[in-house]
This record gives sequence, C-alpha cells and structure tokens, in this order.
Amino acid sequence: MSATNPGEDRTEENTLDSLLLDFPSGPLDLYRKKTSFNWKELALFWDGEEIIRVKQDVFRTLENDPLFAHQPGEDLSVEKYRELTFIRCKRLFEYDYLTLAETVQSPLKSIAVANCLCMYDSSLASVYSLNKQMFGGTVVNSGSNRHHQFVEKLINMEIFGCFALTELSHGSNARAMRTTAKYDPRTQEFIINSPDFEAAKFWVGNMGKTATHAVVFAQLHTPDGAYQGLHSFIIQIRDPKTLLPMPGVMLGDIGKKLGLNGIDNGFAVFHNVRIPRENLLNRTGDVMPEGTYVTSFKDPNRRFGASLGALSIGRVTITGIAIVYLKLCLTIAIRYSAVRRQFGPTDHEEIPVLEYQLQQWRLIPYLAVTYALDYFSRSLFVNFIEYQMGMLMKDKSERQTELRKEIHALSSASKSLASWTAQQGIQECREACGGHGYLAMNRIGDMRNDNDPNCTYEGDNNVLLQQTSNFLLGWIKAKQQDGVAIKSPLHSVDFLEDFNSILNQRFTATTDEYMDCSVALAAYKWLVCYLLRESFMKLNDEKNSGKSDFECRNNSQVYYCRSLAIAFIEYNVLQRFHDFIHNSDTPIKLLPVLERLSSLYGLWSLTKQTAVLYQGGYFTGNQPARRLQNTVLNLCAQLKDDSVALVDVLAPPDFILNSPIGKADGEIYKNLWAAVLQGKNVLERPSWWLEFCANKPSIGSMKSKL
Amino acid sequence: MSATNPGEDRTEENTLDSLLLDFPSGPLDLYRKKTSFNWKELALFWDGEEIIRVKQDVFRTLENDPLFAHQPGEDLSVEKYRELTFIRCKRLFEYDYLTLAETVQSPLKSIAVANCLCMYDSSLASVYSLNKQMFGGTVVNSGSNRHHQFVEKLINMEIFGCFALTELSHGSNARAMRTTAKYDPRTQEFIINSPDFEAAKFWVGNMGKTATHAVVFAQLHTPDGAYQGLHSFIIQIRDPKTLLPMPGVMLGDIGKKLGLNGIDNGFAVFHNVRIPRENLLNRTGDVMPEGTYVTSFKDPNRRFGASLGALSIGRVTITGIAIVYLKLCLTIAIRYSAVRRQFGPTDHEEIPVLEYQLQQWRLIPYLAVTYALDYFSRSLFVNFIEYQMGMLMKDKSERQTELRKEIHALSSASKSLASWTAQQGIQECREACGGHGYLAMNRIGDMRNDNDPNCTYEGDNNVLLQQTSNFLLGWIKAKQQDGVAIKSPLHSVDFLEDFNSILNQRFTATTDEYMDCSVALAAYKWLVCYLLRESFMKLNDEKNSGKSDFECRNNSQVYYCRSLAIAFIEYNVLQRFHDFIHNSDTPIKLLPVLERLSSLYGLWSLTKQTAVLYQGGYFTGNQPARRLQNTVLNLCAQLKDDSVALVDVLAPPDFILNSPIGKADGEIYKNLWAAVLQGKNVLERPSWWLEFCANKPSIGSMKSKL
Repeated sequence: MSATNPGEDRTEENTLDSLLLDFPSGPLDLYRKKTSFNWKELALFWDGEEIIRVKQDVFRTLENDPLFAHQPGEDLSVEKYRELTFIRCKRLFEYDYLTLAETVQSPLKSIAVANCLCMYDSSLASVYSLNKQMFGGTVVNSGSNRHHQFVEKLINMEIFGCFALTELSHGSNARAMRTTAKYDPRTQEFIINSPDFEAAKFWVGNMGKTATHAVVFAQLHTPDGAYQGLHSFIIQIRDPKTLLPMPGVMLGDIGKKLGLNGIDNGFAVFHNVRIPRENLLNRTGDVMPEGTYVTSFKDPNRRFGASLGALSIGRVTITGIAIVYLKLCLTIAIRYSAVRRQFGPTDHEEIPVLEYQLQQWRLIPYLAVTYALDYFSRSLFVNFIEYQMGMLMKDKSERQTELRKEIHALSSASKSLASWTAQQGIQECREACGGHGYLAMNRIGDMRNDNDPNCTYEGDNNVLLQQTSNFLLGWIKAKQQDGVAIKSPLHSVDFLEDFNSILNQRFTATTDEYMDCSVALAAYKWLVCYLLRESFMKLNDEKNSGKSDFECRNNSQVYYCRSLAIAFIEYNVLQRFHDFIHNSDTPIKLLPVLERLSSLYGLWSLTKQTAVLYQGGYFTGNQPARRLQNTVLNLCAQLKDDSVALVDVLAPPDFILNSPIGKADGEIYKNLWAAVLQGKNVLERPSWWLEFCANKPSIGSMKSKL
Repeated sequence: MSATNPGEDRTEENTLDSLLLDFPSGPLDLYRKKTSFNWKELALFWDGEEIIRVKQDVFRTLENDPLFAHQPGEDLSVEKYRELTFIRCKRLFEYDYLTLAETVQSPLKSIAVANCLCMYDSSLASVYSLNKQMFGGTVVNSGSNRHHQFVEKLINMEIFGCFALTELSHGSNARAMRTTAKYDPRTQEFIINSPDFEAAKFWVGNMGKTATHAVVFAQLHTPDGAYQGLHSFIIQIRDPKTLLPMPGVMLGDIGKKLGLNGIDNGFAVFHNVRIPRENLLNRTGDVMPEGTYVTSFKDPNRRFGASLGALSIGRVTITGIAIVYLKLCLTIAIRYSAVRRQFGPTDHEEIPVLEYQLQQWRLIPYLAVTYALDYFSRSLFVNFIEYQMGMLMKDKSERQTELRKEIHALSSASKSLASWTAQQGIQECREACGGHGYLAMNRIGDMRNDNDPNCTYEGDNNVLLQQTSNFLLGWIKAKQQDGVAIKSPLHSVDFLEDFNSILNQRFTATTDEYMDCSVALAAYKWLVCYLLRESFMKLNDEKNSGKSDFECRNNSQVYYCRSLAIAFIEYNVLQRFHDFIHNSDTPIKLLPVLERLSSLYGLWSLTKQTAVLYQGGYFTGNQPARRLQNTVLNLCAQLKDDSVALVDVLAPPDFILNSPIGKADGEIYKNLWAAVLQGKNVLERPSWWLEFCANKPSIGSMKSKL
C-alpha cells in the first residue's frame, strides 16, 4: 500500500468494509469514535482475510441453524445438555468445515474453526475434538496402516472415540498407570484388566455415555514374563448398534463437574477384555504374533518419551483455548465498563467506569495479555506443525529431537501461564462487571467454569512448570560440563549464551526515557538468568547437604525453579510479540497501538516480578518500581480510548458471544432487561406458593432442649 | 489447669472425649498420630464448650432430619432447588435454634448458628438471614415502635422479607438510587415510583419469588417540593395469601446466577404504589401527617451516613462467611493431600502429595490465614455488637461515633481481604485436588460459586477499600492540621502516633534469629506508615497539579491508597491474632502450634508485599526476602504434620461437609467411587442412544462453498 495513492486507499477500505461490517450505533460510539486506529485494518492484519472468512462461515452457519439457537433463561439438566451437545456435534459432521485434507493443508484454519466452536460452546468443541483429535489424532500418530480402518469409521461417525490415560488414583504420574495388557499368543489377543477400582480409567471425556472406542494406556506384559512399560491400545468399549457396553467392560459417568457439562466424562473397569493383537498402537513398539516384543528404541524411557511427545499438541491447544475465554470475557467487561456509569465529579454527573484509573488497571493489562498470548499460541502451533511434519517424514535429525524438547518446554509453561492468566483475568472481568457479572446469562461464569480444568488437565500446571525449568537447567549443566553453545531451533534459549554479561546488567532507564518494550525485554532476560543461577545454586546446595535427587528437586521448586519457568515463558511471549510487531509487514498506522500493547504486556507482567528484581539487585532504590508503575498506568490511560475497538477486533458476533451486557450495540440495560424478561416463568408466582401461603410452620416446635 | 495434678488432667480429657468424638481410623492416622498437640484441646480453646454444643445441636438436627438429606448425583433444577430451600427454611423456623432473646443475650451463638447453616448450604443460610437479619434487623434498627408489628409477623412467618437497595443501573453509588417516594398529605400515604426500568430494584435476594414485604430505599420528596434524600420504607409487594404481586408492583426473578441458586434474586418496578405514612422507617427522619419533614440531623450527609451505619453488620458477616468456605475447602484439600500419593523417591514408592514442599506452600499458608481471619471476624463481630448496643442505648458520645467510623473502616477492608483470600484459597484448594477438585460432588465448586459475590456485594471490594484508606488519611490530616493524638476506640490506628520513628526503622533480623510474628508485625507497621505517607504525598502531588478532588482520589488508588488499605487490614488481623494467642488463657501446650500459625500468616502475607518493602528501603540486598521465604517454607514444613489435626478442629461432620474426598476417614478413593456409583443412571446408556445408533449424519452434506 502506498500512502501517495488515495485511490488505492479507497479500494482497500471498500474491501475492508465488505469484509467486516460496522457495529450498530449506540452508547459505545463515544469510545469507538475516539479510537486511534481503524479496527478493521487491525482485524485484517491480525487474522488475515482467509481466516476471517473461515470464522465468518462458522459463525454464520451456527447462527442460521435453529439447532444452535439459544434458549434464554433455559435451565438445562445435565442429561439434556449432553443430548443437545451430541446432536449438535453430529451436525458438525454435516457442516464438515474442514476435511482432513484441508486440515493438513492449512492447520491454522483448523485451529480457527476449533476456536470458533469453543466461542460458541466449549463442551461442544471438546466433544468434537476429543473424538477427532484426541482419539483420531492419536490413532494416526501412534498407530500404523493397520489402524486406518478406525480413522475411516471415525470420519463417518460409525464409531465414536475417547482417550483413556488417567486412572482414579493416578493422573500426573502417567508412568504409574496400573491397567494391564497381557498378550496371549494362543489367540493372538491382548487381555486387558483393571487390577482394582483405583485403577479404573477415570475422567475420560466422551467415555461416560457416548464413545464406542477408546485409546487405552496400559502396562504391557509379554508372554516371556517381561514387562514392557506403558503402551496404548484401541479397545472397543460399546456396541455401536446399541451403545451398550462390551462384555467385561464396566462403563459409567463420573457425574456433574464445575463446568463443561456437555461432555460426558466417564470411567471404565476392564475385566479380562480381549482385543486383537493389531489393536496395539505400534509406532514405537509392537508385539509379534508369537509374542516377541520389538521396538526401535533401546531405552524404554526414550520410547515412553517419544510416545508421549505427540501429546504436546494438547498443551499447545489449551494455550489457545484459554485465550479464547479471555477474548470473550474482555469483550463483555470492556464494553460494559465503557457504558456503565457510577459516581462522577459532581452529584449530578456520572462517568463511565472505564474512565477510572482503577478500572483501567484491572482490565486493560489483560487485553494486552490477550493479544500477546494469542499471537504466541498461534506461532507455537505453527512450530508444532513443523515438528509433526518431521515426525510424519520420519525425520531422525538432532534438530527434530531438539525441536521436540523445546516445544515440550515452551508448551508446558505456556499452557500454565495461559490457563492461570485466563483464570485470573476472567475473575477480574467478572468482578469488574459487579453483580451483573455474577448473572449466569452474561456468560462470564461459563468461561470461568470451562477454563478451570485447563489449570490441571494435560498436566497439572505446577508439575508442568518443572518440565520447563528442567529444560533450562539442562542447558546450563551442558554448558558448564561440556561447554556446548546454547542454541535451540526456536531460539527461545539463545540469549542464555550471554548469561554472565546479562547478569551484570542493571536497570538504568532514566526518568525521562520512554519505557518501551525493550526495557521489559532487558529486565526479563536478566530475570531469567538470575532465577536460573539461583535455582542451579539451590539445587547444588541441596545436593551438597546430602539429599537425594528427588528431595533436591522437590525442595527447589518454590521461589526457584517454579519462578524460573514462569519468568522464562513470560519473556518468550513478550519477545515473540515484540518481534512480530516489528517485522516489516505491520501497517504503519497500527504500529503505535500494537507497541503500546506489547509494552503494557511486558511492563505489567514485570510489576509482578518487582520483588525478585530488587532482591537480585537489578532494581535499586525507590525509582525503578515507581517508574514501572507509572508507565503501566500511563499505558492503560493511553489505551483506554482504544480498548473498545481492541475488543471489537477479537469479539465474535453477538449471537456467539451470547451476553446481554456484552453486545456490540452497548445497550447494556436494555439488553439485560429484555433477556431477564424472557426468563421462564419470570413473572409467575412459584409453583410451590402454597408452601408459604397455606402450610405454615409451627415456630419452635422442634427446638431442642440443650 | 495445673500441670502438677494428673488427676485433673484425666478428668478434663474425659470431658473432652465425651464432648468431641475421635475420628474413624484410616489412612489419615499417619498424620493424626504425628500431631504435636491434642486437637480436642484446641477445638475447646478455639470455640469454647458452649459454642461447640450449639454447633453440634445444629449439625445433629440437620443430619437426622430427612428433609436435609443429600441426594447423591441429583441434578436439581433451579426451580426445585428454590422450593427445597424454602421448605428447609420453614423447618428452620421450627428448629428455632435461637429465639430473639437468646440472640440478643449471646450474639456469638447466633453467628455460630448462621455459620453452621452456611456450612450445610449457603443459599439456605442466606434466604433465612435475608429475611430475619436484612429485613427484620433493618426494621428494628431503622424503624421505631410503630414497626414492631412487622417484626412479630416475620417471626411467625406470616410475612417474608427482603432488602431492596440496588437498582439495575446503580449499585456502588447508593446515593444515586432513583426510586421515588412522594408524600401525599391528603391520604397520608407515600406514592412509590420507579421512573424507568433502569431504576428497577434489582438483585434483591428473596424478592424474585418469595418475599411479601420489602425494605425499599427511595428518594423522599415532601409536599413542599423539597427533596429529602434517600430513605427506607416498608412496602408490601405480595399478598401473603396468594404470593401474587400487589397492584402496581411488577415483580420478577432475575434468573440463574453463578452460585447461590437456592436464593430467588429478583427485581421490582413500582408504579404509583401507595403505602401508609407509618411505613417510613423513621429512626433518622420522619414525615409528619401534614407533610413536614423532621430530623435530628442538620446535615443530610450525616443523616445518610448514620442510616447506613447499621449496614456494617453486612460486611462483618461476610468476613466470617468467607472464612466458612475456606474452612470447608481446606478440610477437603488437606485431607485429600494427606492421602493422595503421586510420584516418589523410587519408581515403586509413592508419597503423599502433602509431603511435597510445593503442595505445603500452596495450602498451609491458607490454613494459617483461616485461623487468623476466623479470630479476627469473631472479634470484629463482638466490636460491632458493642457499637449496636450503644445505638440501642442512644449513646451520643464521641466514642460511639469514633467506634462507628473505625468499624466501618475495618469491616470494609476485612470484607475485601476475606472475600478475595477465600476466592484465591478456594481456587488453590480446587487445583491442589487436581481433577477430583473439579468434580461437583466434592463440593469445592459450590464454595467457589457461593463465595464469589462476596467480592462485589455489600460494596465492591475496590470501592470499599477506599473507605479504609480515607479513614487513615483522615487521621494523618487531623494530626498534621490540628495535632490531634491518633487514638481510636479499638486501637487499630494507635501505632500511627509513632509514624515518624516507625518510618525510620529497617529490617534488621539477622540470619540466626528465629523469625517470629514480631518480625512481621514490625514490618507491617512500617509498611502501613510508608504507604500512608506515599498516598498522602501522591494525593498532594495530584492536587498541586490542579486536579479536582474527584480526579485526585481516582488517580491515587492503584499502588497507593488501595495497597495502603490492604496492608492496614493485614496488619490488624495479624496484631489481633498475635494478641489473642499471647493472652494468659492460651493453654501452654497449644502455644507452639498457634505461634507457628500466626507467624506463617504474618510472614506469608508479607511475602506478597516484598516489592514495596524493597521499594521503600525497609529491605535491602538479597537476604531479607530470602530469609522471609525460607522461614515461610520452614513453617509450612513444621506445620505439615499438624495440618490434618488443624483442619479436624475446623471441620464440620462428614454429613455437613458432604465431600467424598474430604471425609474424616480419609478413604478418598472408596468414598469417591461409592459416590460416583450412586449417580443417577450412572451405568445406563444415554436416553438418546438412538441419536448415535440409528440417526446417522450425512457427512459434509451441509458444507458451505466458500
């Protein structure tokens, strides 16, 4: 685009206007008119036209299909919600937004579709992807040609899948699962058993009521008496003709959860269940017909690692899903805050609560986080696709191994950061909307409930962060012992090569200097190096006091390794966002607002690290923290008038957002009032009115004599 | 008790054993046997025999009454839940645990009963107390003899009450309510009107379906055309014979909420509703039959302040309720963590997750918080009762006014601290229990959902904190301008008299010194003084730059006044807990564990203030923060073996706790498995099985052509 050609400008604007419609006029005009940039331009830059069209297609079909209509005020039972979710899931097979071929061709489109579905209802999105990705994807990635029949049946919905790893008494310690698979060479079958109820597969999504087939992780025993470790098997658990359980399989639903109740999480107890030999997913190891175990891995630990490597996709995906919730909540809370008026300079004039510094400080940093993490999760997904391509191409290079480790470290921490940030951000949005945020119809509660498991599944956050700190400590050890250069495929650790010189740096920005993103980046580099050194020394101290490795690790998490992993991922998110903005494609008009967002993300995150920055001597005296705080508040104030447009860019259509106080027209009270009045029996007296009017209590009649 | 008389010891133990039964033997024995103190002794010390018996009475009656039986796996609709809650509420009138006279005689008993009910179901407790305390209490405290008839009818459940202050578009800004009450001297009636739907009374608990009478806040206009400000009126909104709305009153239910769905929150629109003149609650102002307004207050602001003074009880109560939730959640999470085993020093040995430093650090500080805040909330309640007695005695002394202001400041901040701490602590408990914490039957979700509104109702936390900082700033101003001595009835601010010398203090504890509570107290005193000085200076800077008072205040909240209010209340909670433990009644055997709890509370809270301690120069160099952290971790380790007994002291019986993984026998898996298998249709195929088996989708049939 050339600034000297106004005609071209106009054409581009016309294209934009046909791609993205204006919002209805209303109370939000106040802020929309003050915006420093063209929101459509940012939307186009952020997603690209192709993804925008994919999203619009999904949103439009859902909105136009009566099956997806909302029922205001409806109070669905869990049973009914599950039924509706399943029927909607079937409809998704009819919409078939992306064929398998299209997904492979454009993985970013498939993430866009998944996120759109998640914006509509995360239970629906989960049921759909547990079947397709978790079951289907695992069969493809861990199996071989002989398992192709299952994928075909899955695509046609002849069967329905689930992924069964965790047991009642084991989650984080995957290696300690107790379900057994013993090979019987006489019939060439595996015999699957749950030794007791504590080893029941538990928490398995889609297993409670629906799935006909499960990928089940079990300890493999071969006829020679050898134990071969954890392997995955396809087990038919229900008859597709009746949905009744297969012989020897006890199946059930684990009950209501804090959220995601459209999903039927279930359990399974296996008693001498026989499955064909071919049902072993044999990418990393196989059992020959006569019972010999074969594998290309010499070290069983490495085989186990490789077989779980593909699971990174779960953490990459969760990173993105957590951000979906933040997008929805911030849309609601910021639009609400731009219209809600409370108090004012005089008794007769009230101002929008968004004008209060406190409200800005509560919400706008989370908006910056959302942009930063949204970009990070997409770019990490692209990294993962590269890794997956390598796997499919049987890339045995060292780079491929290094890439796996780096993605594992990054996704373990980004999943933790994103899920916790969403948990906190959603809570802030809920409180920032006051009581109306507590009303179910405004939907912040759904986000909170559905995000919550992100903090513990696919690895408990605190446990996952150890994966990241171990990765970093490994580099330092390798450097110290073998003098290797610190350099990783995605460059996340490359700066550690300057470890010593970084540690000598101090915060020097003077009072007059504008504190931009580079200030935060420099501070973060120091922070990671400092925490890495402290963690390394702490581990050594523990070792020198004669403790076992197990104890040393356990005693070095709090304030050390855990803080290290968090600082490292915050740094990486910031660095990627910064690099992205400053690449040459960014439209010049969007640069200021994007720079403010990245600076705010970096500096606000850094305010939570102030204690360590002082403790380690990077900060000294009153000024550094004060200047950090002032800059955060200034950035919030600068972004305040842009914040409505910034959520407009991220927001789905009203139908999908489904929140009266979050609607694009900003008529918060009219919309809320209308929705309340649509409630079932809203104006009726209660069905149990006679309990008050006729059947009076006899006061104190049952009082006990103490 | 004399240590030299073993006979007496034994008698006391016998009494204890008959008062408090042993817990069933099981996996928790491991920790119970390692406990450093006798839990029954602590329970007796903590509650006293009388309160223990009151609690046991409530718990026992609920457990023995089939009406209160739990239905495992039941999925109650909102409508059914409300019906059940109301019927149970009626039963409470029959149990009549405390008559009005008993409540007046022993207010602590009434709090104990309320908290017991809250442990069973907070919706039930709320419906009961919204009627009795919020409606009844307000009528007593704001009305006069002429309103006694309403209280009598209330006690007999001839009428049912609610408290209507907030409107659809106004919450925090109570003064800006828009409902009007115009006096008509011809009929000696008030005419009540809602000017428009945005002025509808909204969020009113019990109003949606049940209440027959409401205390309604409205702007009073007298026939002389004068506007007299906000007043409260008793309005009959439903016919007690039919539960149908009264003429001119439009009533409805606002719908499902994130929690507390046993309560029917409602709205009301008034159209020319006429009520007798006598229905004005006339403690602070009245309208004579001919229409003259009379009040003993010259300043309408002071009248308004006095009329809202009694509302402190709401914040005092919420402080306690938030702690009830923490007690329940910590019982669940700590018992679970003491039994759940995951990973271990070898592949074949797993250890309880409570043995991990990280898990200790996640949970045990919240246990310390719970004890500290539990004591604080009870002592603040006693202070409030003293104030209330003064009101009833028409105490016009300056001390009474000062007491009101101090309780207002303390309760505004303690409500905020307690509700936020509960929010965070409950979330930590939920995550610390992994997936099983996400299962609804384990009940952590209920706590989270029911605590949530504590953060925003009875005053948004962030707004309330301003009340506290204003109170503190007022003292400094008075000191500076008029040289008054800083001294308040409850002594919460007395230490500010040493403002300047405290500000000169620095952290000096040397490495070898044991960091007890006094270290935290000294640091907190400095912290409050520092933040007070910074806030004061910030406000002056803002003023000097020519901003209005309104702007100055708004721009001095984040990092200044808000932090000040939080530090002040944390200090007070710690100081009271410390003083309580070190008074002469504390049994010597309990002193060590109580001292550890108070130190942990103080030092752990202080770790969140580390940044400010460095920023202001109280801390210098690496050591202070490190020593704080080490002491926190050491205290957690020291309390680890006591933590099961510490929750045993706070825990209600299993029936009330109602959480399979939190049961006193510690059989987490057996209890969970049993509860899952009791689920409705748990092993059945879904009712909609044909949707999978027969009615197959036509794959891609509805795919759009992009």
